[in-house]
Amino acid sequence: MYCLGRDGCLKEACGVLAVCDPQGGAACVLRQALPALQHRGEESAGIAVADSSGAITRRRGLGLIPQALPTSLIQSLPGEMAIGHTRYSTSGHCPRVEDAQPLLSTGHFGTTAIAHNGNLTNATDLRNGLIEAGFTFESAVDSEVIAHLINLSEASSFTDALVEALGQVEGSYCLVVLNSDAGLFCVRDQYGVCPLVIGWTKRMEQIVVASESCAFSELPRPVHDWREVEPGELIHIYPGGFESIYLFNSSPRRSCIFQLIYFARPDSFVFGVPVGDFRRRCGIELAKQLPAECCLGEVAPIPNSGLAFGYGLAEGLNCPVRLVYSRNQYYGGRAFMSPEVGRRSDIAGKKIFVDPCAVRGRRLILADDSIVRGSTISKDIASVRRHNPEAVWVAIGSPPVVAPCFWGVDFSTSEELIATQCHGDLAESTIEAIRQRIGADRLYYLPLEALKKAAGDPLGERFCYQCFTGDPAGLPVPTDMVVYQKSVAKHL
Amino acid sequence: MYCLGRDGCLKEACGVLAVCDPQGGAACVLRQALPALQHRGEESAGIAVADSSGAITRRRGLGLIPQALPTSLIQSLPGEMAIGHTRYSTSGHCPRVEDAQPLLSTGHFGTTAIAHNGNLTNATDLRNGLIEAGFTFESAVDSEVIAHLINLSEASSFTDALVEALGQVEGSYCLVVLNSDAGLFCVRDQYGVCPLVIGWTKRMEQIVVASESCAFSELPRPVHDWREVEPGELIHIYPGGFESIYLFNSSPRRSCIFQLIYFARPDSFVFGVPVGDFRRRCGIELAKQLPAECCLGEVAPIPNSGLAFGYGLAEGLNCPVRLVYSRNQYYGGRAFMSPEVGRRSDIAGKKIFVDPCAVRGRRLILADDSIVRGSTISKDIASVRRHNPEAVWVAIGSPPVVAPCFWGVDFSTSEELIATQCHGDLAESTIEAIRQRIGADRLYYLPLEALKKAAGDPLGERFCYQCFTGDPAGLPVPTDMVVYQKSVAKHL
Amino acid sequence: MYCLGRDGCLKEACGVLAVCDPQGGAACVLRQALPALQHRGEESAGIAVADSSGAITRRRGLGLIPQALPTSLIQSLPGEMAIGHTRYSTSGHCPRVEDAQPLLSTGHFGTTAIAHNGNLTNATDLRNGLIEAGFTFESAVDSEVIAHLINLSEASSFTDALVEALGQVEGSYCLVVLNSDAGLFCVRDQYGVCPLVIGWTKRMEQIVVASESCAFSELPRPVHDWREVEPGELIHIYPGGFESIYLFNSSPRRSCIFQLIYFARPDSFVFGVPVGDFRRRCGIELAKQLPAECCLGEVAPIPNSGLAFGYGLAEGLNCPVRLVYSRNQYYGGRAFMSPEVGRRSDIAGKKIFVDPCAVRGRRLILADDSIVRGSTISKDIASVRRHNPEAVWVAIGSPPVVAPCFWGVDFSTSEELIATQCHGDLAESTIEAIRQRIGADRLYYLPLEALKKAAGDPLGERFCYQCFTGDPAGLPVPTDMVVYQKSVAKHL
Amino acid sequence: MYCLGRDGCLKEACGVLAVCDPQGGAACVLRQALPALQHRGEESAGIAVADSSGAITRRRGLGLIPQALPTSLIQSLPGEMAIGHTRYSTSGHCPRVEDAQPLLSTGHFGTTAIAHNGNLTNATDLRNGLIEAGFTFESAVDSEVIAHLINLSEASSFTDALVEALGQVEGSYCLVVLNSDAGLFCVRDQYGVCPLVIGWTKRMEQIVVASESCAFSELPRPVHDWREVEPGELIHIYPGGFESIYLFNSSPRRSCIFQLIYFARPDSFVFGVPVGDFRRRCGIELAKQLPAECCLGEVAPIPNSGLAFGYGLAEGLNCPVRLVYSRNQYYGGRAFMSPEVGRRSDIAGKKIFVDPCAVRGRRLILADDSIVRGSTISKDIASVRRHNPEAVWVAIGSPPVVAPCFWGVDFSTSEELIATQCHGDLAESTIEAIRQRIGADRLYYLPLEALKKAAGDPLGERFCYQCFTGDPAGLPVPTDMVVYQKSVAKHL
Repeated sequence: MYCLGRDGCLKEACGVLAVCDPQGGAACVLRQALPALQHRGEESAGIAVADSSGAITRRRGLGLIPQALPTSLIQSLPGEMAIGHTRYSTSGHCPRVEDAQPLLSTGHFGTTAIAHNGNLTNATDLRNGLIEAGFTFESAVDSEVIAHLINLSEASSFTDALVEALGQVEGSYCLVVLNSDAGLFCVRDQYGVCPLVIGWTKRMEQIVVASESCAFSELPRPVHDWREVEPGELIHIYPGGFESIYLFNSSPRRSCIFQLIYFARPDSFVFGVPVGDFRRRCGIELAKQLPAECCLGEVAPIPNSGLAFGYGLAEGLNCPVRLVYSRNQYYGGRAFMSPEVGRRSDIAGKKIFVDPCAVRGRRLILADDSIVRGSTISKDIASVRRHNPEAVWVAIGSPPVVAPCFWGVDFSTSEELIATQCHGDLAESTIEAIRQRIGADRLYYLPLEALKKAAGDPLGERFCYQCFTGDPAGLPVPTDMVVYQKSVAKHL
Repeated sequence: MYCLGRDGCLKEACGVLAVCDPQGGAACVLRQALPALQHRGEESAGIAVADSSGAITRRRGLGLIPQALPTSLIQSLPGEMAIGHTRYSTSGHCPRVEDAQPLLSTGHFGTTAIAHNGNLTNATDLRNGLIEAGFTFESAVDSEVIAHLINLSEASSFTDALVEALGQVEGSYCLVVLNSDAGLFCVRDQYGVCPLVIGWTKRMEQIVVASESCAFSELPRPVHDWREVEPGELIHIYPGGFESIYLFNSSPRRSCIFQLIYFARPDSFVFGVPVGDFRRRCGIELAKQLPAECCLGEVAPIPNSGLAFGYGLAEGLNCPVRLVYSRNQYYGGRAFMSPEVGRRSDIAGKKIFVDPCAVRGRRLILADDSIVRGSTISKDIASVRRHNPEAVWVAIGSPPVVAPCFWGVDFSTSEELIATQCHGDLAESTIEAIRQRIGADRLYYLPLEALKKAAGDPLGERFCYQCFTGDPAGLPVPTDMVVYQKSVAKHL
Repeated sequence: MYCLGRDGCLKEACGVLAVCDPQGGAACVLRQALPALQHRGEESAGIAVADSSGAITRRRGLGLIPQALPTSLIQSLPGEMAIGHTRYSTSGHCPRVEDAQPLLSTGHFGTTAIAHNGNLTNATDLRNGLIEAGFTFESAVDSEVIAHLINLSEASSFTDALVEALGQVEGSYCLVVLNSDAGLFCVRDQYGVCPLVIGWTKRMEQIVVASESCAFSELPRPVHDWREVEPGELIHIYPGGFESIYLFNSSPRRSCIFQLIYFARPDSFVFGVPVGDFRRRCGIELAKQLPAECCLGEVAPIPNSGLAFGYGLAEGLNCPVRLVYSRNQYYGGRAFMSPEVGRRSDIAGKKIFVDPCAVRGRRLILADDSIVRGSTISKDIASVRRHNPEAVWVAIGSPPVVAPCFWGVDFSTSEELIATQCHGDLAESTIEAIRQRIGADRLYYLPLEALKKAAGDPLGERFCYQCFTGDPAGLPVPTDMVVYQKSVAKHL
Repeated sequence: MYCLGRDGCLKEACGVLAVCDPQGGAACVLRQALPALQHRGEESAGIAVADSSGAITRRRGLGLIPQALPTSLIQSLPGEMAIGHTRYSTSGHCPRVEDAQPLLSTGHFGTTAIAHNGNLTNATDLRNGLIEAGFTFESAVDSEVIAHLINLSEASSFTDALVEALGQVEGSYCLVVLNSDAGLFCVRDQYGVCPLVIGWTKRMEQIVVASESCAFSELPRPVHDWREVEPGELIHIYPGGFESIYLFNSSPRRSCIFQLIYFARPDSFVFGVPVGDFRRRCGIELAKQLPAECCLGEVAPIPNSGLAFGYGLAEGLNCPVRLVYSRNQYYGGRAFMSPEVGRRSDIAGKKIFVDPCAVRGRRLILADDSIVRGSTISKDIASVRRHNPEAVWVAIGSPPVVAPCFWGVDFSTSEELIATQCHGDLAESTIEAIRQRIGADRLYYLPLEALKKAAGDPLGERFCYQCFTGDPAGLPVPTDMVVYQKSVAKHL
């Protein structure tokens, strides 16, 4: 989550959800399933509901879902169609309700609510163009650009205006859109960068669109079947069914591998891949690469992201798993968030605690999914060092992150990446420099080829690996990032 | 947590904490460390602070610590000595602020704050006697009985009055007591049923008493050393030091084994035993008892209580650990708790979710620490059955619970125990009946002898195993429980 | 509202209310009528309800009634009998929930809730005696003394125990009492210091006891009839009726004249006197005493307490009323009171504002009910002086207050009274000194004889005028106040 | 406050405020003075502050000022310039934060905050035109139209763009505008419909613009001088001074007489007229018209709006004022407003209460400022009838309201006016029909000519009397109101 610069436009990594329920319970169904996407955004949450007349009511708020969207507020909102959103927490930016989604606007085609996951790479240009043309912005989020483009269109129908608007944006996006006249839509960019799935109950009585399939587990009625929304597919959902338009000629698929490594919940299918199983396979792949004496250690998975990977690593090494790190179960809500100001203030204790007895005199293999800035793993290592382990080895379930991302995830600028600070490539010397920096006795990364294997993509054709390689491989790059991009390239 | 009957007197399982800081920061130190005892009580929390004049201020509230004791309320409370409390959640009883501790009362010896963990087995008799003598009760907690006994005493000093009061109570207790004139005390019953430790920084600049040693990890300054408060030891703490009185002739030690199995945090030492390591050893012991084909399964630990045990079991069986169950990290605060009424209302999603891909076609060995009523494990089994495992075996890190507890933990009446419902003993037939009831394909309990071995107590002399045997082994039994007790005995 | 000294025991001026409704709606009826007593206590409010089994539930909170007792909390409390209380705001004392009434305690006679208006003159002695006897106090309010005395009694019935307890207390009191076994009671001290009325709907379907008759106007069903509770009368209320016991031989009636002058709402009957009309008559009486040129002025009543008096004064003088002072209608709730900490913080503007145009060049006669400390009238005068009036004359609807009160109202110690500071009697020189102190051009007080006439008590036999005379006229005086009393007497 | 129809555009009657304080305390000064405008809008409040870099931060919320803008939120906002707004409560419309002002938008000329009092008569047309041109609306308030017009302008400076935008809007407006580059502005429409004043401390160290002069009384430092902002005057305010542009050729002045009659606070000067004094003069004027026997009655002013008028009436009739109606001082904050949802729920008692003793057997002359729908006066009459007065006469300080207003105040449609329902003119028969409807024994209105005299406008050239006559007298009328207008005209 970082600022592209002068215009206050933010990158986002969020969760989107949509429900069509002709029985009028769309808001309640959505509110019940939305917590399954809480891990994709903790800063704010929102919902927009269309009643049978098409009138749209929105509720949004700062904080976790129970605070932002009290169920008492939602139960009184009957409606056949609803969309919802969870927004990721930013650092160094005071959250504003104005930026919480869905955005709601009234224009040419009635009232439209939009919720968005992804990053438009030409948002800054479009925004500046619109401002020069006399347009007005209330928020700092990409969705408002799309709303303006829709309302600007002279197309004869909302659907055509939406298609026209999407023709102008570049980058990654998964959108759910609710229009007072035209109804419910979802759409995914042509590269399939971000995840989006659609499921339905028997006889399509309820239809649900979500960022991850885990949302289907929280529904009041089980889904009968589900599939991915295809890259470039625009789906119009109506009571009892849906129909698709394919917006683009075939593009290369470039789904974000980092969704599998870190973002998604382990019980989700994402891009057709079962997430927990993928992480376990990463662990098994890494085990194959490690020196034999590693099986004399004990794997200490760092919860929650390192669990599946650590279990796979222990399986591959045939060595025990050890409960070194426990996650504070009261910390999830990040301490109490005051409803009036949305500030996080009160002490709920440490996020992770360490069992001294599981450390003393042992050869630990800390297992985590990835290293981005290096600050978390450094603290995790320091907190076990205090209790005198024999050795602290670190095993990471992905390659070094060497380039910032322009499409999906919340990477800091290249300068903030520990790998870039330590040379910026995949070479031995970089890894050695990182090892010293974080204070580990040994440091192992999963090689890129092994990652591709674990992802079932040996040819590297389905996923975007740019953060590990610096190569966008066909994805559009923001214009003001080109210089930046080149400086990354020089390292490689 | 259940009602002893006609008088509204409740059993409790709580956390207590005390801090002596001559620099005047006792309240802040205590508030910072109290979250380490949150797992011992989620219903309410409280603090009482004595300033340099002895004047005592109390704050208490319903809910988790950040709600019940906002740091802003605490920072303005200077004082050299403070005590704190977390109270366990009861079922079927609407929490009342009146029952939150510390209790505060004014009498003969000035103002006294008391916080209590344990269960007085003669509380009902004492309470009834006091009421008949014309005394008045404001709460339903044992501490108020003790407060009355202190104020009734004709002893010449507070310390003598406290000793006199403790001479009249029976059962288990760990108390921290703060008196406006006499200062800070802690005391543990003669059997050592509940845990209590005392630690200090260098030169005894800060002295801290806590239910579990994990509280020492949250202190702003590290403890220099610490030890258990001995059974029957009354400690008077003053700035820069403390001194002990031993209240009783030697009694048998009867520390509650269930604190190790379930209640304590894995990074604590409790009764001198490192908790996480104990649980791992239980897993290794059980593995020795299992049939050989179990090593073809995969261990699915049920978070959080089954983790250490499950890892030990996998180590003993030499089989993989599998991320089947994930704990919802947003659930810890049990959804948003409304500050005004303390009710738990809003939806934060499921507490535990299951990865379908880790289940389908596999032979799972679910690992958990214990089965009490059987309702939780039944749900956990049902939630994996939905995804078509090959087999669901269940391994439990302790023996069947066959008798209710009168001293420490929150067991329902004998009738509610699944083991009692299924015959009430440790016999094969009981276990088979439980297996059918919970829906497992196989069910393995840790035998009692193996448990004793894991606890380093092969002769069964240090711990109370009454909940597994029905034998109180010298601990006092509530008078109104005697009939009850006999009916349990008949099963054995 | 002031502290009697070493023991933390507070004086109180409060509102009490009780409802008997066999249809089970007692809590709702009470909650609806309680705001009519809000002016008698703004610091806290509480309610206790007995359901059909006798079980008593209490709710209490800090702040105004809507905050302290949200209707959502009350609607879920079915019950046939309920009592309620509003507590007066103290200065220099941080409000504590512990001191909010009704108090609730469990003892010999089951559970008892007590709410109290008045002041026990021997509360300190009783309290100290109880503490020495080993009793314990949780609050600083008189009701807890009464609760202890009831529970201490060896009488065979609750009613007898209540009578016995009342035999031991001295001073003024109006109590409403709810006992889990014996039901609902109200009682008034033998002198009738504080007001209490009882009313009923047709066929006594609902029976309501209240501090002032204005509460009857807020009932969902109108009262059919009502009367004063007599001095010394103990009433036992049951579904469909009530019966009385007279506790004392005849005493002189000593109702507090200050309730009529200041405390009561103008639409109440208090001690059989219509309050608003009494105040108007005070104005007419004062007009008779004023020099003739006063009718060239314009009366500026200070809202709200000076309105009725000012209108009467203008009527008597035959001169106009002028809207000089307006009360800020948004100030009533004294700015927003944060529900979590009960502190009054946020700015809602000034309590009273002045119209400059109604002041400039005019001869104003400010009209108010009384002067106690003199700080309010000084500010009111200063705020009109700013706008250049020709003259500021002040007319007060009662005599100078020269002695503190031990029974009913919140007077500061004698030292804080402006009259005492300015000599302490009714003489000309005292009034001249006060005039200079407050900055008025002229100052007129209502003479004592004129006050008696307005109150329909020409012989001075029905009301207590001690605050104007220093003569308790038979009312018991606190033992630790005797010295004090003498020093007042010397001035007279 | 009513809906103009198909487009959701609302009429508004609000308070605006602006502060320039080069010392950086603009937000605090503004927050302190804003409560003086609370009576102009109770639905929501907001503030926007520009810091020294021009960056604008906005806070807004539903409810009264203490809830909507807690001082803790404001104190942390340093800035040299600030604008604020209070918004009037609507009926039948659920308040939305989106419609709270100031509106904030980013466009061509940086970020702009706008707060608005008044009504654009061509807002619907402009809005529809903008929507057809592809523009997007987030709120339902007129200010957003103005924001769009500014951003659409191709002018070279913000000031020119603002002037250009104002050239396109018709109707009434008082605006305060804060732009990140160009600074602070205020402007008033050419007819001077709504009130606006500008004041300054010595050496213009602080400059304040407000809807009413009463805001100057709440400033931390007193104003040195002040004047009206002239109709058609655009003022640019900078640290230490301001300068004016006059936007229009001379128009007739058409200030809203209803601001004087009802809206403004009695201590304000509005349109150069002292409000309280004006109302008193209305009372004296009406007294002259009444039959002689009226002086045998007693005037019962209905608080708060009828007080000054009633006092004048009693002065004119030479009869007493009587405290019949008292305003509940705890009602101002309209009961507790829940911070989370902004709904008004909890019971604080009745808004106005009646003293039965002041009613029984008396000949009352109820005095109020105006009758619009007739529902309030009907209730007030019914509440005294209950207590058996001899007669209930009603005296109203303005003529019958016969036409809805398109520029300033919150009149319902013509159909909802009681006068329209009862024939729709000023004739005797209309008044007789109203009298019967409201249940009065007699009903007197102030004749139009007497009103003009009291307002110092005998020729009817300075004020708009359209609501009493149906004649807009030169003010622009909304296009979709023309038909409507004609139907009103027919009655006259």
